[in-house]
Amino acid sequence: MSLLRKITPKLLSTVRLASTQTLIDGKMTIGPVNTSLHPENDEIAVVKLSAPPINALSKNMLRSLESTVKSLEQEEDVKGFILTSEKPGIFSAGLDIFSMYGKNREELTEFWTSVQDLWKALYGTPLVTVASINGTSPAGGCLLATCCDHRVMVNHPKFNIGLNETKLGLVAPLFFVRAYQNCIGPRLTERHLNLGTLFDVETAQKIGLVDDVVKSAEDCFDKSFERAEEYCEIIDKARSNTKLLLRSETLEWFEGYREKDLELFLTCVQDPMVQNSLNMYVKMLQAKSKK
Amino acid sequence: MSLLRKITPKLLSTVRLASTQTLIDGKMTIGPVNTSLHPENDEIAVVKLSAPPINALSKNMLRSLESTVKSLEQEEDVKGFILTSEKPGIFSAGLDIFSMYGKNREELTEFWTSVQDLWKALYGTPLVTVASINGTSPAGGCLLATCCDHRVMVNHPKFNIGLNETKLGLVAPLFFVRAYQNCIGPRLTERHLNLGTLFDVETAQKIGLVDDVVKSAEDCFDKSFERAEEYCEIIDKARSNTKLLLRSETLEWFEGYREKDLELFLTCVQDPMVQNSLNMYVKMLQAKSKK
Amino acid sequence: MSLLRKITPKLLSTVRLASTQTLIDGKMTIGPVNTSLHPENDEIAVVKLSAPPINALSKNMLRSLESTVKSLEQEEDVKGFILTSEKPGIFSAGLDIFSMYGKNREELTEFWTSVQDLWKALYGTPLVTVASINGTSPAGGCLLATCCDHRVMVNHPKFNIGLNETKLGLVAPLFFVRAYQNCIGPRLTERHLNLGTLFDVETAQKIGLVDDVVKSAEDCFDKSFERAEEYCEIIDKARSNTKLLLRSETLEWFEGYREKDLELFLTCVQDPMVQNSLNMYVKMLQAKSKK
Repeated sequence: MSLLRKITPKLLSTVRLASTQTLIDGKMTIGPVNTSLHPENDEIAVVKLSAPPINALSKNMLRSLESTVKSLEQEEDVKGFILTSEKPGIFSAGLDIFSMYGKNREELTEFWTSVQDLWKALYGTPLVTVASINGTSPAGGCLLATCCDHRVMVNHPKFNIGLNETKLGLVAPLFFVRAYQNCIGPRLTERHLNLGTLFDVETAQKIGLVDDVVKSAEDCFDKSFERAEEYCEIIDKARSNTKLLLRSETLEWFEGYREKDLELFLTCVQDPMVQNSLNMYVKMLQAKSKK
Repeated sequence: MSLLRKITPKLLSTVRLASTQTLIDGKMTIGPVNTSLHPENDEIAVVKLSAPPINALSKNMLRSLESTVKSLEQEEDVKGFILTSEKPGIFSAGLDIFSMYGKNREELTEFWTSVQDLWKALYGTPLVTVASINGTSPAGGCLLATCCDHRVMVNHPKFNIGLNETKLGLVAPLFFVRAYQNCIGPRLTERHLNLGTLFDVETAQKIGLVDDVVKSAEDCFDKSFERAEEYCEIIDKARSNTKLLLRSETLEWFEGYREKDLELFLTCVQDPMVQNSLNMYVKMLQAKSKK
Repeated sequence: MSLLRKITPKLLSTVRLASTQTLIDGKMTIGPVNTSLHPENDEIAVVKLSAPPINALSKNMLRSLESTVKSLEQEEDVKGFILTSEKPGIFSAGLDIFSMYGKNREELTEFWTSVQDLWKALYGTPLVTVASINGTSPAGGCLLATCCDHRVMVNHPKFNIGLNETKLGLVAPLFFVRAYQNCIGPRLTERHLNLGTLFDVETAQKIGLVDDVVKSAEDCFDKSFERAEEYCEIIDKARSNTKLLLRSETLEWFEGYREKDLELFLTCVQDPMVQNSLNMYVKMLQAKSKK
């Protein structure tokens, strides 16, 4: 309630518009997020991030994904969804650097609010959620994965996963940390958040960050579907109420914390040293893309 | 304090009556709970659930077990107890389905209050508690075990343990979850509470749900005694204050939460779909018993 | 703030005096704590406990270590420190028994306040902290280690580590428990705090209480330096803000809890049975030292 009052009318209208979307012929496209029903089981949707080349989490991507989740919640027959990347190789490279570099306070606030809202929608959805991690998944990509009920990842020497924010001079916010910590425990969380560690896929499985490891993108999709069906077979009301009960304390904590979290983000990201670090990173990306 | 006012006079008198019971010739029987001192060490009591065929946790069983715990706390020489089943094969099948099916709000409230009070008594007792799990132990049976200080279980292909509430359309309450989570961690808790998983004994040990696994009911009793003695050898005041200090936060949280927990239970169990699911289960049990 | 008012002027002056100390020629001595810069990297200090024979944590040692931490935080070039013992064989035997035996309430209060303040300084420092555990490390020694960011320990059959307070009739306070639990999880914490278990070095590593195990005191120092450098290579502001964000909830909780914690300590330690148990221990130590 108090939250609603804080969301600007502009944001509200975006959400409203998107939330009224429905699956037409089992398909739905909201911004760079393409959704369809699984060919073998129409209780399960397949949500594909489609913002090449790296599925960066821009405000547009975050709001679109949030709206997709909310729209699927309105579909009577849909019990869950598989979250994956349209283009195997990169699940998501995380938060969009360009949304954090050289922006003013208002723009940064809008961006961060969309990060918070996406987290709330994905972590707090009663739907079954399976991350089908068919590519590398640092920082915000790892956040998306850890918000889901289950994680399946392709084993590939170039893929890794983890909250590596400190490597960019950033501080992973506490709501990123909660889901991470649930998977790998407080000790590994502290050590590897300090160090900004990215884990290879086998290590990720060993420490509990990933549940299933498979050999190919195809296997990943199959295993994710198998897992989604396993969760969807449980009496839906009991399963979804159990999920929400377990997550309720973190979701309630977040309501009281999100304003402070926004202030911490604004202070951190506007620090000249962080802007400098982002600047170098942006230049590196631009140089790469010119090649 | 505010709690006491809510307990009906009838319940209070039951508790009072039972709490004044003492061990006579080292034995005590409160309802379906038979207690005796261990033949080799009279600091350690042996508490046997004796409600064939499945040691269902009815209001009578729950209140009797609660009173047994409170009575043992009054025995000067008793430092701890082993909790086990009179009849190897079933430790406890969990909450009594018949107490939840077709009952009115008042009856359900009385039943659930007895569940809450038993939890509080068993989780919060300063005595050493060792669960000697000599049979299968789903749902409420698993709760009894996880409230204890230590768990020893017989390895048998037909025995399993876990919080499988969702399989019956029910939601395991948060106070069940706390002790479970302490054993197996938040990630496995979330996954397997959603799925309503029952673990075989070896897996239960591997994930920390059970501490010791033994081959037979006899070994189980011996190992449980060995463990109880290990805990009882520690300076009693230091051990019991340490135990209660570690559990104090959960016990304090529960005081502020139990009313909400009761409301959640009443809403869940009175749902027509849940009643329907319990109905089918009851019929299945009755058909079995006629064979 | 409210804390400051409670600290006696005498204590305040000690702290003030010490906090103004700086490294002269890369060296600093505060009471029994000798500090120097690492010969290969002057961003990393080496802090040696030097109170033979057992590095007991007396009020003097605790205040000196606290002041050392605070002084190092003021050194512009220092990013972290290695905490170790001047004399391999004993890291620290823990809280000074003589400070708890036969003392009056005021003395006990001063002592315990110095324990709390040291914890707060060590657990809450933004500096990188690596415990180089070159000797046995029970009780308060284990506390020092678990407050650090990383633990390296020498594998030796006579060395062990753990919170064994119950063996002396004492109750490990909750702020000792928090860091312990972060390393080994709630289940092992409860079991082994009740039992007062001391772990051998290999077991300590297996359960997460120690991160790296090495063969000799020399290897311990080298590995600790390697780890300290690993942490110090991360952008300092991001790393230290991440560390403090993760520890903020525990540090904030402590502010509201420390008065109650002091009361619990005073009640526990003034118990005649505990004084008796400490008395026996003191006599045993004195008999040993006469040999």
